[in-house]
Amino acid sequence: MHRGYRTLVTCAAAVEQRAVKPESEVPGMSAYLDSLRWNNDGLVAVIAQHVDTGEVLMQAYSDRNAICETLQTGLATFYSRSRRERWCKGETSGHFIKVSRVFADCDKDSIIYLGDPIGPACHTGAKTCWFSEAQVGDDGGVSTCGKHEHHAAHSPATTLYALERTIQQRRDEMGQQKEGKPSWTARLLADPVLLCKKVREEAGELCETLEAGEGAERAASEMADLLYHSMVLLNLQGVPMEDVMRVLRQRFGTSGIEEKAARPPKQ
Amino acid sequence: MHRGYRTLVTCAAAVEQRAVKPESEVPGMSAYLDSLRWNNDGLVAVIAQHVDTGEVLMQAYSDRNAICETLQTGLATFYSRSRRERWCKGETSGHFIKVSRVFADCDKDSIIYLGDPIGPACHTGAKTCWFSEAQVGDDGGVSTCGKHEHHAAHSPATTLYALERTIQQRRDEMGQQKEGKPSWTARLLADPVLLCKKVREEAGELCETLEAGEGAERAASEMADLLYHSMVLLNLQGVPMEDVMRVLRQRFGTSGIEEKAARPPKQ
Ligand SMILES: [Zn+2]
Ligand SMILES: [Zn+2]
Ligand SMILES: [Zn+2]
Ligand SMILES: [Zn+2]
Ligand SMILES: [Zn+2]
Ligand SMILES: [Zn+2]
Ligand SMILES: [Zn+2]
Ligand SMILES: [Zn+2]
Ligand SMILES: [Zn+2]
Repeated sequence: MHRGYRTLVTCAAAVEQRAVKPESEVPGMSAYLDSLRWNNDGLVAVIAQHVDTGEVLMQAYSDRNAICETLQTGLATFYSRSRRERWCKGETSGHFIKVSRVFADCDKDSIIYLGDPIGPACHTGAKTCWFSEAQVGDDGGVSTCGKHEHHAAHSPATTLYALERTIQQRRDEMGQQKEGKPSWTARLLADPVLLCKKVREEAGELCETLEAGEGAERAASEMADLLYHSMVLLNLQGVPMEDVMRVLRQRFGTSGIEEKAARPPKQ
Repeated sequence: MHRGYRTLVTCAAAVEQRAVKPESEVPGMSAYLDSLRWNNDGLVAVIAQHVDTGEVLMQAYSDRNAICETLQTGLATFYSRSRRERWCKGETSGHFIKVSRVFADCDKDSIIYLGDPIGPACHTGAKTCWFSEAQVGDDGGVSTCGKHEHHAAHSPATTLYALERTIQQRRDEMGQQKEGKPSWTARLLADPVLLCKKVREEAGELCETLEAGEGAERAASEMADLLYHSMVLLNLQGVPMEDVMRVLRQRFGTSGIEEKAARPPKQ
């Protein structure tokens, strides 16, 4: 299974669930759409963002009907400038983006669809549309890379996911002969007993920052230690942080986390 | 101090650091810029994203010169469509966005500047430009809210930061008389001894998933428990997850995390 690609909703099922009214039949819809700042083509820019990971999935444009439809169906819908028509992402591929919240920016010409993608967001099959990077190198020249096998390396990974990737790289290198001492991550990956000892130890150190009033800076540092070591432990079990985020969303989105946590601890 | 707004670099200092060459003098730059898909106005859409939190900070447009400059200076630069001129974000406000990486999407008409904002990204003083939300309510009508005091509630918070916000809300409610049993979060916030006991316990349970081979689903669930309880502990110490992410970036960006972690544990 592709990571993060869960149950594929069929197009038909999603379409049936819809009962999209024109804007005139939805109270307040026209006033809202009027408040947006449409460009000369009658469009606003739309950014689809992953609710769990924060990844920017894709960027396209919407007309009034597309915003109106997305608000009603909860499925990311755009206006295709090339085909000049309504475009519900996923309607042909099954790779819908389930939109939970819709935001407009300060000057109302850019929208965020915050949501949960079903499958890859990019038509290439990549998880997001950004996998090619440009940099000015040490030689002062611009280098770019769009090699398919480097997609993950050239995606805009934010800190937590960049760390996750670094840990995976250490894991991938484990079989290889390398010069010098193995990295700390490699040592942890190779020694589950040491790793578990460290996770427990770092949790203790985090608690001590509160117990001994060691201050905010120290607390942030110990939390970083705990997160890092825990993520090494998760890597050994093949668990991506995205799955952890999904668990958190599903729990606290329904107050579930409080309910579950309130149960008496296991004996 | 505003959270997350660190040292303000003066405009002058940043400008001095720059030595922006025209595209013709940077090897490979014209080829790269030629590879992008400019609209009829010679622009591409640009999304500025927070490297630590994944927040979409702002969305604007860049021309060839703006992309060329950003790649060289590492400061987010755009083309202002209203003023019809080059626009280095922060040049007047001091609120620069330090861009560490630049990405293009699959069809090369949308760019991500991944970076670290110095101060609020929005000219309104809000952290990001998205703080107004539209939803179709239970009554079938569209409601929007743009109240200044609700900005945080109507920002596109991803799972980790939405959880952080929920914890803070429980904290804010603590003084208030509320019906029924206090939430689990409120109990933890009120009882640091219980909280520390839980953090240590959850770390142990996470380790047990590896030690006892309890499987990936259980590991994700225990990591969610550990993260949640640790975040309650951080809240009590006024430490946002953004600070933890910054620590992680600063460490593993320079392999520092491995170096620090490799030191012998405290005696
Ligand atoms: Zn805007
Ligand atoms: Zn794409
Ligand atoms: Zn590459
Ligand atoms: Zn590819
Ligand atoms: Zn530590
Ligand atoms: Zn595009
Ligand atoms: Zn703004
Ligand atoms: Zn509100
Ligand atoms: Zn647990």
